Amino acid sequence: MTACLITIGDELLQGFTIDTNSAWLGQTLLPLGISIRQRITVPDDTEAIISAVSQALKTGYTFIFVTGGLGPTRDDITKAAFKTIFKTDEYFDEKYYRQLTERFKKRNFKIPSLNRSQAMLLTDCEHIPNRIGTALGMRFVHGKSSVFALPGVPAEMKAMVLETILPEYLPQATFKRIVTLQTTGIPESKLAEDVRDILDNNARGFGFAFLPHHTGVNLRIRQKPGTNDEVKEKLINRLIQRLGTHYFGRDGETLENVVGKMLLGSGKTLSVAESCTGGLLSKRLTDIPGSSRYFFGGVVSYSNDLKRELLGVPEELLSRFGAVSAPVATAMAEGCKARTGTDFALSMTGISGPGGGSDEKPVGLVFIALAYSSKTQVKKLNLIPERTLHREMTVTAALDQLRRFLLHKTSREEGNILT
Amino acid sequence: MTACLITIGDELLQGFTIDTNSAWLGQTLLPLGISIRQRITVPDDTEAIISAVSQALKTGYTFIFVTGGLGPTRDDITKAAFKTIFKTDEYFDEKYYRQLTERFKKRNFKIPSLNRSQAMLLTDCEHIPNRIGTALGMRFVHGKSSVFALPGVPAEMKAMVLETILPEYLPQATFKRIVTLQTTGIPESKLAEDVRDILDNNARGFGFAFLPHHTGVNLRIRQKPGTNDEVKEKLINRLIQRLGTHYFGRDGETLENVVGKMLLGSGKTLSVAESCTGGLLSKRLTDIPGSSRYFFGGVVSYSNDLKRELLGVPEELLSRFGAVSAPVATAMAEGCKARTGTDFALSMTGISGPGGGSDEKPVGLVFIALAYSSKTQVKKLNLIPERTLHREMTVTAALDQLRRFLLHKTSREEGNILT
Repeated sequence: MTACLITIGDELLQGFTIDTNSAWLGQTLLPLGISIRQRITVPDDTEAIISAVSQALKTGYTFIFVTGGLGPTRDDITKAAFKTIFKTDEYFDEKYYRQLTERFKKRNFKIPSLNRSQAMLLTDCEHIPNRIGTALGMRFVHGKSSVFALPGVPAEMKAMVLETILPEYLPQATFKRIVTLQTTGIPESKLAEDVRDILDNNARGFGFAFLPHHTGVNLRIRQKPGTNDEVKEKLINRLIQRLGTHYFGRDGETLENVVGKMLLGSGKTLSVAESCTGGLLSKRLTDIPGSSRYFFGGVVSYSNDLKRELLGVPEELLSRFGAVSAPVATAMAEGCKARTGTDFALSMTGISGPGGGSDEKPVGLVFIALAYSSKTQVKKLNLIPERTLHREMTVTAALDQLRRFLLHKTSREEGNILT
Repeated sequence: MTACLITIGDELLQGFTIDTNSAWLGQTLLPLGISIRQRITVPDDTEAIISAVSQALKTGYTFIFVTGGLGPTRDDITKAAFKTIFKTDEYFDEKYYRQLTERFKKRNFKIPSLNRSQAMLLTDCEHIPNRIGTALGMRFVHGKSSVFALPGVPAEMKAMVLETILPEYLPQATFKRIVTLQTTGIPESKLAEDVRDILDNNARGFGFAFLPHHTGVNLRIRQKPGTNDEVKEKLINRLIQRLGTHYFGRDGETLENVVGKMLLGSGKTLSVAESCTGGLLSKRLTDIPGSSRYFFGGVVSYSNDLKRELLGVPEELLSRFGAVSAPVATAMAEGCKARTGTDFALSMTGISGPGGGSDEKPVGLVFIALAYSSKTQVKKLNLIPERTLHREMTVTAALDQLRRFLLHKTSREEGNILT
């Protein structure tokens, strides 16, 4: 089964609205074994809609989903286009208009005259109820294709798909066909080399894709029809084993969540001292409800003054080694741990840019320290010299340093240790 | 000038990745007078790319932007497609390969064999440098159309557009046709009422749209063809005057940037004490390069222990009024100001949820305090009881409190003052 999505809207093309409907439809249809082959966005223009839908009908997709262009202020351009494409007639539906009037009355509004057009319906199609808004959806059948016209408002579109289209027109999902394994600390090409033999041996039953981000690489596994679940589970376990400590979670789990669960499980607490990341690590840790059970907070010591005042970093270290150095990172983590009384303290000091770099200490350089019991582990990294990415990568590297520490309970197998 | 965007990726069609590139390109091209007429997403499949690009060339758009399909593990499908479409040859670029090898070396990695393909380049095109990643961009000219192939990774794509394509290949914007005025602290319906007469009187030459967000409402003004710039400037000035203190900036300027410039201009410094926002305010302030000139940092006092230890909040206040109270917000701001030595200190303590609420102190409640000279201004707000929105709205309200203070240089005209 194949599908094509056609989304309508000037505001989508102009970028004032980000198209989240398409991603949602993709995620909803994929587990049902429906492969989305193309997605097209066209302006609020009847001719453009007619051309896109006609082209999709010619290609012969099993399902064509058209979203948008059904609202009362948008001149019902989708309805006009469908009237032409399917050569249907229009009629005024008294019963639906009465329903609409009732709904407005319940909310103490007189029905606006604009809404009369919502009761002008097309013949030769099935109408899909709209629990949330006023525009009805439509389903046309053309050869082997089903064409759905849905509102562009996400809540209305989703309700129609979940409450009417899936149960009435689409086959049931039987099992989860897609698994995503998440890694960090290993480049895409190295990862691909490491697992190549496993992927090659399983190419018949599965599809694979590497999805690189700046903070890690995901490996996505798609189970092809006819492959059984037991084989899938075995494959996943083998891959996780091979990925080793680089693997941290699956199916969208975040690193802060993984680390949080590890801290909670071991009854340990954490505080952080942030310089270049300026609060981003604290922000991500506290994105998680309940994080106060293991995360106490910390210090954003963006200036050298605060490194001294709030963390007790000796002036001598700052002037001798500079704020971006292993000794200062160490003193920040140790000072943070001493003042907050947590089991662990993470510190970060680096040059995110765009300014502040030198030959000796270029933009991208960062030192991350992890203080625990009476020891401190420091890492020196050269990350991408772009401010936003540098800050995100630093936070990921810090969380990952703690994750690997908790995993190994020893620092000996870690690379790059300076002190 | 017209444009067509072609984005490549199974993960986009399947919805694992939301296509933010297209919206960003739309927003970037629109003010240059480039009208995006169509947007197409195709799978990781050479034939599909060839078909979409060929169709776009036939339509004759001025610009065709193709994003994605350039990574080392994705079989360079875009390169293969372009090789076919433009009938070009391929060559191995020794010099670029040496550059790549150097870059991997700097990060302590041996260059993986897969990356060799990144130095296989096509003839008959101009290459666009990639400061962040490894895949080069391409520009082909075909009749009156320019075709750009760009990486799908947003940071890499954006850097190429901003640093190479806009300055080198796109005509300069002659005048800005779209202006967005940003407000905060006023509901959409009130805003619409306040400016209605101005909009009505200018409906012939301009289009208007209200764009509400949870942290404020934007008013978008579109200059219709034939309207002159002087009229536009007058209208904008009148609207800004009418919007009064609710107006804080235009065309995507952030509140943290506006406040930063005001602090810099008055030679004042700021620190922050964050509880419920957990570092988000610090993060946003330090998103801005150079913010260290006025922002020193602060404390994330997520636990009560840290409110006492790092900010000197008396235990008596915590036990008598609770952590979410005006006296504790005041003590946090004053403690932060005393310990950091800055001119201003902002503090926030609230209940972001989902847990922690009560009848007396429901989820959504927050106290924001601003300490300055020997006084402290506290506000109590009831915001949306959803964790992410609550944290964002709290940070916006805190920045806005400081902005209005700096604007008025007095607190007397502010509402909601508790102490």
